[in-house]
Amino acid sequence: MAFQSLDELRSACLDLPAGDAAAAAAVASRQDTLTKPQGSLGRLEEIAAWLARWQGRPMPKLDRVKVFVFAGNHGVTAQGVSAFPPEVTVQMVANFSGGGAAINQLARVAGAELAVIPLNLDHPTGDFTQVPAMDPDAFLAAVSTGYDAVAKDLDLVCFGEMGIGNTTPAAAISAALFGGGAQRWTGRGTGVDDAGLNRKVAAIEAGLKRHAPALSDPLAVAAALGGRELAAIFGATLAARHHGIPVLLDGFVCSAAAAPLARLHPNGLAHALAAHVSAEAGHRRLLEALSLPPLLDLGMRLGEGSGACLAVNIVRSALECHTRMASFAEAGVSEK
Amino acid sequence: MAFQSLDELRSACLDLPAGDAAAAAAVASRQDTLTKPQGSLGRLEEIAAWLARWQGRPMPKLDRVKVFVFAGNHGVTAQGVSAFPPEVTVQMVANFSGGGAAINQLARVAGAELAVIPLNLDHPTGDFTQVPAMDPDAFLAAVSTGYDAVAKDLDLVCFGEMGIGNTTPAAAISAALFGGGAQRWTGRGTGVDDAGLNRKVAAIEAGLKRHAPALSDPLAVAAALGGRELAAIFGATLAARHHGIPVLLDGFVCSAAAAPLARLHPNGLAHALAAHVSAEAGHRRLLEALSLPPLLDLGMRLGEGSGACLAVNIVRSALECHTRMASFAEAGVSEK
Repeated sequence: MAFQSLDELRSACLDLPAGDAAAAAAVASRQDTLTKPQGSLGRLEEIAAWLARWQGRPMPKLDRVKVFVFAGNHGVTAQGVSAFPPEVTVQMVANFSGGGAAINQLARVAGAELAVIPLNLDHPTGDFTQVPAMDPDAFLAAVSTGYDAVAKDLDLVCFGEMGIGNTTPAAAISAALFGGGAQRWTGRGTGVDDAGLNRKVAAIEAGLKRHAPALSDPLAVAAALGGRELAAIFGATLAARHHGIPVLLDGFVCSAAAAPLARLHPNGLAHALAAHVSAEAGHRRLLEALSLPPLLDLGMRLGEGSGACLAVNIVRSALECHTRMASFAEAGVSEK
Repeated sequence: MAFQSLDELRSACLDLPAGDAAAAAAVASRQDTLTKPQGSLGRLEEIAAWLARWQGRPMPKLDRVKVFVFAGNHGVTAQGVSAFPPEVTVQMVANFSGGGAAINQLARVAGAELAVIPLNLDHPTGDFTQVPAMDPDAFLAAVSTGYDAVAKDLDLVCFGEMGIGNTTPAAAISAALFGGGAQRWTGRGTGVDDAGLNRKVAAIEAGLKRHAPALSDPLAVAAALGGRELAAIFGATLAARHHGIPVLLDGFVCSAAAAPLARLHPNGLAHALAAHVSAEAGHRRLLEALSLPPLLDLGMRLGEGSGACLAVNIVRSALECHTRMASFAEAGVSEK
């Protein structure tokens, strides 16, 4: 287990590698010599520099790309916050194993390995309207599972999740970290009706009220209002930073799971790109609060890492242009 | 040569296949049985239905994807409208052949064949401030080259272009077809300075004035103000429609090249998706005028088919989810 105490975890969150500015600068210089008008590859040029900065080399690689889908169950589903019954979480984990889910197809197109990591599915977290979702031990165990899952030799990681009810903890975390009230962050998830939406807002308000005294600490927010799969994403995002691995974040739940790191450290998520903005209401607001402009905006709201996977080939494209294009001099092309 | 006369070409533009509504409906029905909340794959679900409609089968394929880059030179460069000298067109065609350009890398990541088709590069079109860019024979020859390039057994085609100075004809065509004046459609292309931008606007205004009597006919617009590579894209887009091949349009020049088809027929571009919106000022306006919401918005402004290629793996992802996901019944997942 990576972290035995909250203090140990907190230290790891405060002591983050700064990234390789020289590698990023070398990318920018090289980009200006390649056979294209300067800057004309837009965000692809930024992505190449971002890969270089966080992999710590001017010629980054994407030989090993891996998608992690963490799964958890949520006590707060007792409040009637989801359109689907909680048993769907374990059923969908079986579907991932059988290759029948969206993420299986998307990972294959992305050329990414897929790892599915269920976290104590038969023991849902506490209902945060009544008790903390996780006590410190349960929280540290979930964070450590995520941290330990990320091998040091990966070149890019995508994080996704599965957990019936988990847009409710995502909205609760967002409200606790960034304010504005429950309504501002709450959407329909997998498709609740108006009554379900009202129950969701009420549950989040109750959770924010019950745990108010603890919520100035981002780690306490993640433990009291989050969930095991969110805590694992937090841990995995932290591991990626320490191991020099750039991260593609997925949708609202994934972004909310990682958000406490940005509250603990001013550039805690600098090694992460928002792969897409989902149709779930709170996600666009959360990405704005995190200053993470999304790469894609395709009206998706599935989770599972689906949006993150979809961005992998854009990152590959950025890298291939950077590493394999000819310069003006090499190709004998006249400059401006 | 596909077209011997303007009348023959006009007939081919007016008599367009309507698409297979039953195949598209079958996709929508199947999507609602797959293991995801209904509609949660957003635009990926629309893309699957669009492929089915235009390939004319409920289970579309993407075995053969091809990118065509048409190249041409422009007499209007005499007006000082580009930041790069005209010889760069032929130099970049050589760079495409050598594998050193952005499109080479992007086509490889997209799993797409690449065809580069130069059109009379040593005979630039006429300077449209003085004469029509092309007489009817030259125009029909270029359109036919594009039309004949598209083999009937392709599953998806991307169109791109290379031609120093060609954002000027693109802006002129856009202004002629959709109004609003030259300034509204004119941007910096590969990077002209303010003086160059003023020359560009002046050239377009001069062209619009000189050819005003002819500009109520979209084919005359394409001939008088366009260019050979734009005419070839027009022809290739028309061929794709007749052959049942969906199209990914690239940036401003490509979209302007195809736009006359939307003016000749009310759903002339229904078989085309805008792969991206470029940073070139007029492109967003043009896509709005064409009611083509872009898939990607990454600040690119390179042309070559670069944005179109980048969208191929998104289309592949949509297809793989459609054809290979399990249904709720197959996977034993509980429904809402």
